[in-house]
Amino acid sequence: MSATDATVQAEALHSLCAAALAGAGARSTDAAAAARILVEAELMGIATHGAIRVPDYARRLRSGGIDARAVPRLERRAPSLALLDGANALGPVTGTRALEAAMEMAAATGIAWVGCRHSNHFGAIAPYARTACEAGYAMLAGTNASTTMPPWGGRQLRLGNNPLCIAAPGPDGRHFILDIAMSVAARGKIRAALAAGARIPEGWAADANGRPTTDPAAALAGFLLPVGAHKGSGLSMAVDLFSGVLSGARFLTDVSSWVDRPDDPQGLGHFFVLLDPARLIGRAAFAVAMARFQHLVRSTPAADPAQPVRLPGEDLLARRAQALAEGVSLPQKLLAQLERLSAACGKSR
Amino acid sequence: MSATDATVQAEALHSLCAAALAGAGARSTDAAAAARILVEAELMGIATHGAIRVPDYARRLRSGGIDARAVPRLERRAPSLALLDGANALGPVTGTRALEAAMEMAAATGIAWVGCRHSNHFGAIAPYARTACEAGYAMLAGTNASTTMPPWGGRQLRLGNNPLCIAAPGPDGRHFILDIAMSVAARGKIRAALAAGARIPEGWAADANGRPTTDPAAALAGFLLPVGAHKGSGLSMAVDLFSGVLSGARFLTDVSSWVDRPDDPQGLGHFFVLLDPARLIGRAAFAVAMARFQHLVRSTPAADPAQPVRLPGEDLLARRAQALAEGVSLPQKLLAQLERLSAACGKSR
Repeated sequence: MSATDATVQAEALHSLCAAALAGAGARSTDAAAAARILVEAELMGIATHGAIRVPDYARRLRSGGIDARAVPRLERRAPSLALLDGANALGPVTGTRALEAAMEMAAATGIAWVGCRHSNHFGAIAPYARTACEAGYAMLAGTNASTTMPPWGGRQLRLGNNPLCIAAPGPDGRHFILDIAMSVAARGKIRAALAAGARIPEGWAADANGRPTTDPAAALAGFLLPVGAHKGSGLSMAVDLFSGVLSGARFLTDVSSWVDRPDDPQGLGHFFVLLDPARLIGRAAFAVAMARFQHLVRSTPAADPAQPVRLPGEDLLARRAQALAEGVSLPQKLLAQLERLSAACGKSR
Repeated sequence: MSATDATVQAEALHSLCAAALAGAGARSTDAAAAARILVEAELMGIATHGAIRVPDYARRLRSGGIDARAVPRLERRAPSLALLDGANALGPVTGTRALEAAMEMAAATGIAWVGCRHSNHFGAIAPYARTACEAGYAMLAGTNASTTMPPWGGRQLRLGNNPLCIAAPGPDGRHFILDIAMSVAARGKIRAALAAGARIPEGWAADANGRPTTDPAAALAGFLLPVGAHKGSGLSMAVDLFSGVLSGARFLTDVSSWVDRPDDPQGLGHFFVLLDPARLIGRAAFAVAMARFQHLVRSTPAADPAQPVRLPGEDLLARRAQALAEGVSLPQKLLAQLERLSAACGKSR
């Protein structure tokens, strides 16, 4: 927490974000649902997908880039399959609806797939994963995104840095939540290096001609490199296939960038696969196996004794618990911006 | 092809491998099914998971490490979920049965999950993926494996280099098939470097104390490093969760190594998720979208003009087509070994 940060309680932050989105025209239930996803990410320490997105969402709601009055439409396609037409609503509204539908269908058949099209940026995936895990479901989900990488071997942006999330419920709320994008480093970290006047490590990015670079400006004009070369590139394509192609959404270069064209619908695609472990091997056997799995990982001797081995999701959930108890720290400037935006809500009522 | 290689036709190789497995006691239908998976991998150029595995499988069949007479048992758990008890049969027999069951269930509900337990090494996943794609299904599948990596931040082997395969059918047999393990490089490549007296590139492996190394001997005594640090480590854990934990199979350090304990059942777990794109967005819309997806990737300007950008699976399928037309080249020594093993088949009849 820096001197320019303020501490705000989770509930107050949620009210503020929801009011800001409602002030930009969103229905109060939609504003609350979208704020929940963003605030959950903030609590988990994923600040890049937290409250900082509210002003962007509000701007797009006002300009019509996002349709404030849209109602996503669910189409059942098979006992375990559905498509959700996001109708250009707020991304987290569509994501939340898709998750709910997938859980409901998985309760009936054991596993379900819901694909979303005509959607927008839907926040981080970890908040959806926590909801799924709390309800007892394992989840696999992903989304496509506007282009930030070439496919491996290329020198033109054609591929999003598409995140994939794999989650499973752990005993006592200790859920396994892996939420990763496919680049070695995030664009935000390169922007931070540029702002700090620092160079970036080798392997993070290439310049516009495809040559490796440690210059953050050249990297931002060039592209991110995927984890494991062709492996991360292939995984990012696979996530786009599942999110975009299989949902009837836009994909690859057809996805619209909310940075370059904020007033256009993005046409994003997402997918959610929900699975009920209790139906598969039984609730008790699953809990015993998860506990042993976690024990075997956590008890691994650490390379650095000061850094014990952790499971994906442990840090997120620990930060969330701390933020719920102590409040979350936000830049004063962002807080003031949210307050201004939420004031518009009162005026419009 | 080296001077010590021989060329053999695909069908002849299949007969030879099947006879070798039957000679070690496998039922003829099981021997044929297992040989099909191994020979398909060989045709695709995945020689590490090809005919070279036949002598290993035969040895384990003979010693009772694999049960030559086992019949995997399918348990339906929900309309879209099943578990397959491999009963310690040949891994590819269990894998093939699971794939068939998953396709059958997905035909009814749109998507299905089949988890396998009490299984053995089941070959590469790409051959299963091609079968799924030829039948019109998208597939997500994985398997756990005996330990070759520590979880990220650890310095003891607790995690397999667990492969994940994501596939979707493309027009005219041009399927998307991504079949990757989570280490930067395969152990086989390190063994090859040791045999050739060469050093390995930085980033491939660490020594037994967790220090980065370029010495292949130190690397083999140490461990492989995962792609993208915590990302590849987390993905490998996720594959084990899906393959092992959710199937009621062994996982992490409980999986038995067929190298260290060839006479023991491995207790491996696999999972198969099959999805019918035709039920989701319709056959025609899916084919159009796949063709556009492939075009957008392939037409990316290449960093090196001599190396056009390709999609995952393109190389595998091109090698397969060539091998079917021209035969596959195998080391003379391996071919002689297969011939000796298959001769035992005649004797036991």
